[in-house]
Amino acid sequence: MKILSFEKDGLPVCGVHHSNAAGQDVVVDLSLAAPDLPGTWPEILGALLLSKVEAAAQSAPAAAQLATADLKILPPIPDPRKILCAGLNYHDHAKEVGADIPTHPVFFTRYPASVVGASEALVCPSVSEQFDFEAELVAVIGKGGRHISVDDALGHVVGYTAMNEGSVRDFQFKSTQWILGKNFDRSGSVGPHIVTADELPPGGAGLRIMTRLNGETVQDSNTDELIFDVATLVHHASTAMTLEPGDLIATGTPPGVGVGRKPPLWMKPGDSCEIEIEGIGCISNRVVAESG
Amino acid sequence: MKILSFEKDGLPVCGVHHSNAAGQDVVVDLSLAAPDLPGTWPEILGALLLSKVEAAAQSAPAAAQLATADLKILPPIPDPRKILCAGLNYHDHAKEVGADIPTHPVFFTRYPASVVGASEALVCPSVSEQFDFEAELVAVIGKGGRHISVDDALGHVVGYTAMNEGSVRDFQFKSTQWILGKNFDRSGSVGPHIVTADELPPGGAGLRIMTRLNGETVQDSNTDELIFDVATLVHHASTAMTLEPGDLIATGTPPGVGVGRKPPLWMKPGDSCEIEIEGIGCISNRVVAESG
Repeated sequence: MKILSFEKDGLPVCGVHHSNAAGQDVVVDLSLAAPDLPGTWPEILGALLLSKVEAAAQSAPAAAQLATADLKILPPIPDPRKILCAGLNYHDHAKEVGADIPTHPVFFTRYPASVVGASEALVCPSVSEQFDFEAELVAVIGKGGRHISVDDALGHVVGYTAMNEGSVRDFQFKSTQWILGKNFDRSGSVGPHIVTADELPPGGAGLRIMTRLNGETVQDSNTDELIFDVATLVHHASTAMTLEPGDLIATGTPPGVGVGRKPPLWMKPGDSCEIEIEGIGCISNRVVAESG
Repeated sequence: MKILSFEKDGLPVCGVHHSNAAGQDVVVDLSLAAPDLPGTWPEILGALLLSKVEAAAQSAPAAAQLATADLKILPPIPDPRKILCAGLNYHDHAKEVGADIPTHPVFFTRYPASVVGASEALVCPSVSEQFDFEAELVAVIGKGGRHISVDDALGHVVGYTAMNEGSVRDFQFKSTQWILGKNFDRSGSVGPHIVTADELPPGGAGLRIMTRLNGETVQDSNTDELIFDVATLVHHASTAMTLEPGDLIATGTPPGVGVGRKPPLWMKPGDSCEIEIEGIGCISNRVVAESG
């Protein structure tokens, strides 16, 4: 199942993305198809109601089936409690930026306001020209918990989505801590939807992951190249903090980012940047200037 | 004015802390004294309603004046959108931990679940013995904004509070990024209340700041020692992201932390740790074991 969020009357609504019996690309509006369900994904996931979502999507009346192209697609979890990101988590990427291979996952955070959805534009900061792309596989927590073992970890992951973990490199490296450069308003994107784990290999492993900037492939790797896999990341994050339904754990980016190129390659207003992950889909965002 | 949050029927409620006409230490319950006001501080601050809060507190009926000692005091903003923390922001503290004086503010983040209020216990992690204290002055954003100039910055700060920015040192230094060691559940505290900026020197400057561990003074400095002052921190944070009412900016800790001592000094279950800042007050927390 492919679950997502879209905007209706200015508010986020939960939806299910699929091809209907007539072969049309539609989103089932759960506020119409299943009005008795809670209105947010964290609540639905926390109450273990995904099977009811699936049943409602299968039997949705035509009026609840909306043409995908007509919708403003938001990040699948519009306001997660946590967006934890792993840095330097592909062997070759650590090498391209001149970093040692980490011996422990490198976690940092993004605020929800730093990401947009599939229908929205990335905002190129006015104060920097070093606006970089980063394709990432994201694990979405379904069942919360603390001190989750590696063996149990994948049971806490409800599905996977894609992220452009857009990074403002000069601000990322103004100090030892990367937070500023990773949290410019609307500098990244998540989506277009979450593919539930049952439709993907365990841990989202073995999936081709790519970035195309203005149609040119600039990152092309495979999630098998992760240094710390999804189960290991969930374990380590939960050692410190209680994970909650809807939390996102981004798993790091493969080689090919703009800062590692000679000359460097940056996103700029007018560009289009696509992140595609095998089995998940593609999130494509325009880039606009901050004032626009 | 001293504003805070406390728990009533399991939910956070806004209150005003003061000594009443009879000289008693009370909290005015705004849900009783001003039921027409919004129910959270970010909403009240965003709607510029502090003068109504003050009027309601002054004229509160006796039934809305609760004995402070009877209340469970929560963090003054129980669920802020952001807790941004500045690291290495006192000259002498940077020296004691062997770090270079930063040339730009060093920002990292804490999640709301990592802090408790004045009536709650700090939780000593089960996986570490290196549980350290950090006294910090915290600026609270009243008026949101982006690209706030240094000159305008203090106009966006509604008040100041105190924080024990409890840090799990071995986890903080497991990688280059400090997030894990700064985000253990209930490992820090904020409060007891926010003192509005009109009652303090501009920028919260010139205030004595202390930590007492089991009654012994272990940190004793002054906010004049900040490398980057409050206005400068607000400016730099807002360069990347839109600040919102209720956001917290912790300004870093002075010398004396446990990790900088020989031998190191850690908080452990059974301890009591107090952070006191001149003109703001004292937040005192017991330390309990994680299982407790």
